Amino acid sequence: MTDPRAELASDEIEHLYEAAIALADEAREIIQGALHAGFSVKHKPDGTLVTSTDLKVEERLREVIEERFACHGIVGEEFPPRNPDSAFQWILDPIDGTEDFVHRVPTFGSILALYYKHEPIVGILEHTGLGLRASAAYGHGTYFRCQRSRLADLPAEIGDDRARVILSARGNFIRYRDEGATFDALARAFPNHRIYRSCYGHTLVATGAADAMVDFHDTLWDLAAARITVEEAGGIYRTVREFELPGGTRIYSSVFGKPALVERLVAVIGTADVEP
Amino acid sequence: MTDPRAELASDEIEHLYEAAIALADEAREIIQGALHAGFSVKHKPDGTLVTSTDLKVEERLREVIEERFACHGIVGEEFPPRNPDSAFQWILDPIDGTEDFVHRVPTFGSILALYYKHEPIVGILEHTGLGLRASAAYGHGTYFRCQRSRLADLPAEIGDDRARVILSARGNFIRYRDEGATFDALARAFPNHRIYRSCYGHTLVATGAADAMVDFHDTLWDLAAARITVEEAGGIYRTVREFELPGGTRIYSSVFGKPALVERLVAVIGTADVEP
Repeated sequence: MTDPRAELASDEIEHLYEAAIALADEAREIIQGALHAGFSVKHKPDGTLVTSTDLKVEERLREVIEERFACHGIVGEEFPPRNPDSAFQWILDPIDGTEDFVHRVPTFGSILALYYKHEPIVGILEHTGLGLRASAAYGHGTYFRCQRSRLADLPAEIGDDRARVILSARGNFIRYRDEGATFDALARAFPNHRIYRSCYGHTLVATGAADAMVDFHDTLWDLAAARITVEEAGGIYRTVREFELPGGTRIYSSVFGKPALVERLVAVIGTADVEP
Repeated sequence: MTDPRAELASDEIEHLYEAAIALADEAREIIQGALHAGFSVKHKPDGTLVTSTDLKVEERLREVIEERFACHGIVGEEFPPRNPDSAFQWILDPIDGTEDFVHRVPTFGSILALYYKHEPIVGILEHTGLGLRASAAYGHGTYFRCQRSRLADLPAEIGDDRARVILSARGNFIRYRDEGATFDALARAFPNHRIYRSCYGHTLVATGAADAMVDFHDTLWDLAAARITVEEAGGIYRTVREFELPGGTRIYSSVFGKPALVERLVAVIGTADVEP
């Protein structure tokens, strides 16, 4: 099957990439203001947190997209989808790791991506709390701190005990189905792990600061920029689970990073699944 | 038993606190320079990493302490102890989370503390990569971002599933003895966890950004500033395991943070210990 992204000219992708960078700048400005001036916090019906800043960022990004790209679709965490049949879909997670944002833990981030016919063409991981941003566009590479990120594969002599693996919290693995045994198997097999929320983990993997991540029970917007930023840096991305919730929301579990390690992680996940 | 720290006058403690702040400034300056100019990396005989910056920071801090407090003792990660019989002991971990430092993950930190007759009187958690520092002195409170940190206890309605718990990686729990079952039990009981290296976890707990931490199989310098920064903020600190390695190094496992949650964590650790 041909990759639909080949239909897009390089300068068209560049133009869209610049638009995405401008959106990330808008998000950063609003979040910087909120970190300074404060914000309000509410619990959503599902028990998770949302702040006035989550809403403000998504509203502003939707406004800019609607002005510049009236025919494009928008899928965001806080508001209903727009133009769901468009070939171009902007995916927005205004603040990933809202709980960390609320507690001023600076590893929260904003996730922005643009998809074309279900394939990511642009992805941005914006870390306003850290003054960092990783970004990628199809065929253009992944950039971080003004440099191109190129992932070397994990050297064979780095065993599972030393590989730098990022896991979702065990709470993710049991959020919609009980896949806690998969967490337990991974934590045993790869003991040199860290646990962060999605966005910062994706940045660490896309920039080579961690070797791979296993991210379980996520929605589309949580993972929107992970695949393009990792693949454009030379890593690989595997969706290992995918299912639909009763309301229709699709839930994804993915493994991505340095190729040899991703395969080792996928092998452990496979095993855990068939054991009790 | 009387707390030996009551023997020290408040202005004496203040004087020592200021000296510790000056040491943290020295560490910060060297680390800032290294982040800019680069550093060399080696593997230690135990397989862990050490950089030229770890050594440079500890050398410089020892030099300053020897000049200002010739009779004080020094215990540091990278060099042999000095004046081991002194009532005053400076404890130094020049870079905690060296592996993160090497990969430019900004949550590494420097840990400095001063003990008097085996009790901490001053503690500093310096995060040069994040531009943050938490510090405390006996009877003077814990400070972070120029504000006094005061931990409210965890409200009773926050269940174990929502408490913000920081764990050491499973690799810590099996480093010197196999206490992996304790990690597994904690990860199950408190699924909303993060995993960071010691220093940043201590800062999050001492400043209320996380509710508690379980830190396993550490040396004295890893935990040197945790107790004073947490206790001076109104939290509690429990050593739950303590044993000696063949070479004589003592290994500590501790739980600290908001009182009610610490007791719940200690209860799970107790249970995990007697189960297979």
